[in-house]
Amino acid sequence: MPDRGFPPAEFRSRITRLQAAMVQAGETALLLTSQADIFYTTGFLTRFWESPARPWFVIIPTQGAPIAVIPAIGADLMSKTWLTDIRTWDAPFPGDDGLSLLCETLADIVPDTGTIGLPMGLETHLRMPLADYHQLKENLAPRRFVDATNTVQRTREIKSEAEVAKIRAACGVADRTFARIHEFAAEGRTHAEVFRDFQRTLLEEGADWVSYTAGGAGPGGYGDVISPATDQRLMAGDILMLDTGAVLDGYFCDFDRNFAITHAEDAAKRAYDQLYSATDHVLATLRPGHKASDVHAMFVDSLTKQGAKVGGGRLGHGLGITLTEWPSFTPHDHTELRAGIVLTLEPGVEIAPGLYQVHEENIVLREDGPELLSSRAAAQLPILR
Amino acid sequence: MPDRGFPPAEFRSRITRLQAAMVQAGETALLLTSQADIFYTTGFLTRFWESPARPWFVIIPTQGAPIAVIPAIGADLMSKTWLTDIRTWDAPFPGDDGLSLLCETLADIVPDTGTIGLPMGLETHLRMPLADYHQLKENLAPRRFVDATNTVQRTREIKSEAEVAKIRAACGVADRTFARIHEFAAEGRTHAEVFRDFQRTLLEEGADWVSYTAGGAGPGGYGDVISPATDQRLMAGDILMLDTGAVLDGYFCDFDRNFAITHAEDAAKRAYDQLYSATDHVLATLRPGHKASDVHAMFVDSLTKQGAKVGGGRLGHGLGITLTEWPSFTPHDHTELRAGIVLTLEPGVEIAPGLYQVHEENIVLREDGPELLSSRAAAQLPILR
Repeated sequence: MPDRGFPPAEFRSRITRLQAAMVQAGETALLLTSQADIFYTTGFLTRFWESPARPWFVIIPTQGAPIAVIPAIGADLMSKTWLTDIRTWDAPFPGDDGLSLLCETLADIVPDTGTIGLPMGLETHLRMPLADYHQLKENLAPRRFVDATNTVQRTREIKSEAEVAKIRAACGVADRTFARIHEFAAEGRTHAEVFRDFQRTLLEEGADWVSYTAGGAGPGGYGDVISPATDQRLMAGDILMLDTGAVLDGYFCDFDRNFAITHAEDAAKRAYDQLYSATDHVLATLRPGHKASDVHAMFVDSLTKQGAKVGGGRLGHGLGITLTEWPSFTPHDHTELRAGIVLTLEPGVEIAPGLYQVHEENIVLREDGPELLSSRAAAQLPILR
Repeated sequence: MPDRGFPPAEFRSRITRLQAAMVQAGETALLLTSQADIFYTTGFLTRFWESPARPWFVIIPTQGAPIAVIPAIGADLMSKTWLTDIRTWDAPFPGDDGLSLLCETLADIVPDTGTIGLPMGLETHLRMPLADYHQLKENLAPRRFVDATNTVQRTREIKSEAEVAKIRAACGVADRTFARIHEFAAEGRTHAEVFRDFQRTLLEEGADWVSYTAGGAGPGGYGDVISPATDQRLMAGDILMLDTGAVLDGYFCDFDRNFAITHAEDAAKRAYDQLYSATDHVLATLRPGHKASDVHAMFVDSLTKQGAKVGGGRLGHGLGITLTEWPSFTPHDHTELRAGIVLTLEPGVEIAPGLYQVHEENIVLREDGPELLSSRAAAQLPILR
């Protein structure tokens, strides 16, 4: 288990990299509003984001440390981060929920001819009321708001060794939990009981909290991987899949495991083997310089050669301080994969119409190829007797 | 434990009320993008929102059922709701992540002279990439996008009896968990151990998942209520506060409880009594027709008369399908409280500079006043020996 938090040097290095990207893109300041971007730049970690009541702002100038413009309720916790310039208002405040304070702060930093970068692209959201954003734009004119998705994503996607250690530790939590599957999954137990005990065991194994669990179970496979659990019972011949994003010190793991209940049909075993081989193929082949779309092609190639029908949507994605990060392993995403990126490899096959099996591992991409962060799944479909 | 989900009649009634509000406001269609608004109108319940990768859209026309425009990965689950018009695309798709499908759908429903309502106000966010929203506006011109915060919030805030039953059941989970506090909180245990076991016990008592836990502990009170737990140990004389948003079938509870470790100083007991009395005062006084700001005044009045210093920010808020809903009990929020609204009463006092105690109950407002959904806290500060 790595030490909690990061030393200030880690944040300084992140900000230096962000600022270099800002200068390159011609952005005079960045305005960050999301939980992930604010955690990344400040270390501010709280589950309070679950409340949609208040907006939070962090501004990155081209030089110097970030400035926090936040609700007063967060001042104490923010003062424990490396930030020193923390400006607060009593939120929620109808009519001016931090807007004038934010405006003032940005107007001081950004000259009339400057631009304010805001992530506006794929996988981003603006976490403030839209009407306030419209007002902000008007108040700050002629300053322009520009799309800073690249600035943020190209910086965040390359993980430091300290970040990799956190994700590895989060993967360890799930590894140890899956190793205890016999304690909570068996013929006759309801899906809801299994999902609940899966979460309990993740907590016992060290998760700070469990932001995501999903799964599926059915005869020979499953049709859906995003539904909550029902009171249906596990039956002999079912394939059970459990997937988790357990959180440790703000970092996620995201991988799944499959289990057969009492026995497995040949089709389910074959699907497992095909997915296992396809993952081995990517583990052996993937190198920095490949594109996200290349990984999709590697999976399709391996699965097709094995006679499998590729199933599901994207076949993996980025991972870190949100459950999923860009890029996506689809034919359409040509993001270059560089050393230091953390990824999930997540191939799926369609065994019969509407019947799927998916398989997932977490890796960090090194100069010489992938390094596993999850412990490799069992080479054969495990059977729970 | 109420049955899972809702019958279609519940959703039809919600949509009828929304559509009446839309007509009143002159909105030709509503575009909903948030987890809460989409769950409210469709029943689509999944933890998959944890992934920021894909946008999801639901459109409410002025007549007829909602239309879902969603990533293909959600088609199976959405088809189990009452919706029949479900349009999908293979997300994430860089360059056109559902945008043309959404455009087409809206263009069919909304004439050139029409308006599209979107929540843009306090406590709302647009959960789609901002650049896509800009493009959408341009493509759909001369149709206008207008702020539909009132349409959505005035409808959602009045809970049906079926919704109240779900929130009551979620409160029951936390009630039973707090009743087991002796099992996991005691002198010498670390805050992290207590927080972890609190979550485990919530799951054991029936929570589907635990979206929020927070708390604080320190000699005579605590300074902050949004921080994650540390490895600090509970000590004799500490006041421990635990707060939770446990989720049952998509509905939240949100209340806290205070406990003294081995013994309590008079100042902590006095604060507890003051908060308890102030809550009794509001429980006895609050009626439909009061404003949110009136509740703030009731708390301030009662606490001040008792010689207490009011602490913290807002003194309560709405509750339901997110951890916190509008309105806020501050001097600035003049939302009228109508029968059927579910609220948290959450007064706080500042015992000494930076040292707080907070107290929280969940209620539904009836014609004749508040009905408790949480079991009323103990009348005296409980002491864990």
